[in-house]
Amino acid sequence: MPINSRVIDNPKSDRVKRVAGLASHKTRERVGRFLIEGPQSVREAVRWRPDVVQDLYVQEDASPAVRGIEEESQDSTIYVHHVTAEVMARISKDAQGIVAVGNAAAMDVSPESLEIGPGALVAAFWQVRDPGNAGTVIRAADAAGCAAVILVDDCVDRLNPKTIRSTAGSLFHIPVLTMGTDEFFAFAAARKMPVWAADVYGVPGREPEALPDVLANLGKDGQGKGGKDERAPKAVLFGNEARGLEPAELERCERIVSIPIYGKAESLNLGTSAAVMLMSLAMSSHAGTIWAV
Amino acid sequence: MPINSRVIDNPKSDRVKRVAGLASHKTRERVGRFLIEGPQSVREAVRWRPDVVQDLYVQEDASPAVRGIEEESQDSTIYVHHVTAEVMARISKDAQGIVAVGNAAAMDVSPESLEIGPGALVAAFWQVRDPGNAGTVIRAADAAGCAAVILVDDCVDRLNPKTIRSTAGSLFHIPVLTMGTDEFFAFAAARKMPVWAADVYGVPGREPEALPDVLANLGKDGQGKGGKDERAPKAVLFGNEARGLEPAELERCERIVSIPIYGKAESLNLGTSAAVMLMSLAMSSHAGTIWAV
Repeated sequence: MPINSRVIDNPKSDRVKRVAGLASHKTRERVGRFLIEGPQSVREAVRWRPDVVQDLYVQEDASPAVRGIEEESQDSTIYVHHVTAEVMARISKDAQGIVAVGNAAAMDVSPESLEIGPGALVAAFWQVRDPGNAGTVIRAADAAGCAAVILVDDCVDRLNPKTIRSTAGSLFHIPVLTMGTDEFFAFAAARKMPVWAADVYGVPGREPEALPDVLANLGKDGQGKGGKDERAPKAVLFGNEARGLEPAELERCERIVSIPIYGKAESLNLGTSAAVMLMSLAMSSHAGTIWAV
Repeated sequence: MPINSRVIDNPKSDRVKRVAGLASHKTRERVGRFLIEGPQSVREAVRWRPDVVQDLYVQEDASPAVRGIEEESQDSTIYVHHVTAEVMARISKDAQGIVAVGNAAAMDVSPESLEIGPGALVAAFWQVRDPGNAGTVIRAADAAGCAAVILVDDCVDRLNPKTIRSTAGSLFHIPVLTMGTDEFFAFAAARKMPVWAADVYGVPGREPEALPDVLANLGKDGQGKGGKDERAPKAVLFGNEARGLEPAELERCERIVSIPIYGKAESLNLGTSAAVMLMSLAMSSHAGTIWAV
């Protein structure tokens, strides 16, 4: 609500140093705050998760678009501070006139509270390490209407500034959780969600099923050849960007599904694979009645 | 075939300057050569288009993987030069031990010579300006088994080093042509390829059709609601990464197809849109008999 009337003009002030320090994982852990950079991410945070946003730092000569975000923030208890261009440059190279400081604890979601409706899709990523990839897959999961994203095992921090930028706001649209591997499979079992592995290799004796065949059968029995309740939710688990999933994880998955490559390309990258797999499943379930004819 | 026995160790030599200069568009135009950087791109060039590759520059302390590429190049008339780490650093920051110099003219494909078989898919991109995006969409088109990529109107240079890196070798797997807008539509008409626009807005009086509906009907009549020859090839035209397609281009397209967004994400980026649309169409045509049941 309140706009601080004094323009912050000292790039060496403690406050400015504290905000700039949120680029570091250690500092984020210690102070429980994180940085949201740039108009797109800040706008989506203010719009969808005003409860998360504590402070807004707006460059004094900001564009009308940025001013609009500042205005929108006034419906909530968000503190606005105007800063000089020099101060903003010290805070972030990717501000484009605006950053926000968020409360990390407010981003936490307990697995128990997750709403996973009939037919819902949950996107899970095992050991995704690159911040840009993590953001891209969260955005793809959002576009596909996933109920949640689960970062499994040792993944990049979902509050890494580069991850947030790469989500293009999607971090504030859907719940993003982190879990250990055992915890993830236990969670899926408790929610009666079969886990499908997205993987091109499979394990000895278990060739992956091709995605087009899986899609073609989805409309008929809801779970493809395995045939269970058509409206059961499911989780799709993707592997590390370089190494994929390991046999131990694959063995625990109900099905293994691969995206076919029709040309000479060796593979699709993680972001593209996630988008193709999740959007295909979403499109087939949304066109369910048509696919079944 | 021949390996030059003398190691190039002078980063200021004319030859090294000439190769490094290929990072510039102007120089590429003037000398008709282009730069291929890094093991993945160079390997695919050597393997699929040895006719294009003229010289290989290999760092003297290169990895066994890079040595393997050098060895593979010896089946063709490719000149190999060993260089010091210092020279390689001068040539390219993205070499990872190996670069190649290619002959630009050998990459040219005449539209008349293009083989576009029954049911083939051609991916066309209008005014794509970002080198990374151009590379990503060429890779997606390759994965989807497209017969060709056409860069329409004022696009980034397909021989831009960053574009080549982003294709992950796909530039050497499928023909990539450049055409003017009129030339592209005339080419499609001459080849009896309907052009589908990938676009979320459409034009007044013409709402886009949703991709899942289009896919669901594909198996039945080959062209969806418009229903023509099931095995006709088709071209899908994507717009500029920021502005999409303009009404003038949309009006010239037979159909307008949009990818639905199910969550709160505003949009998919160009690379993701191309992958989802092209892979969906490819998967549906490859699973044609199944989709039709």
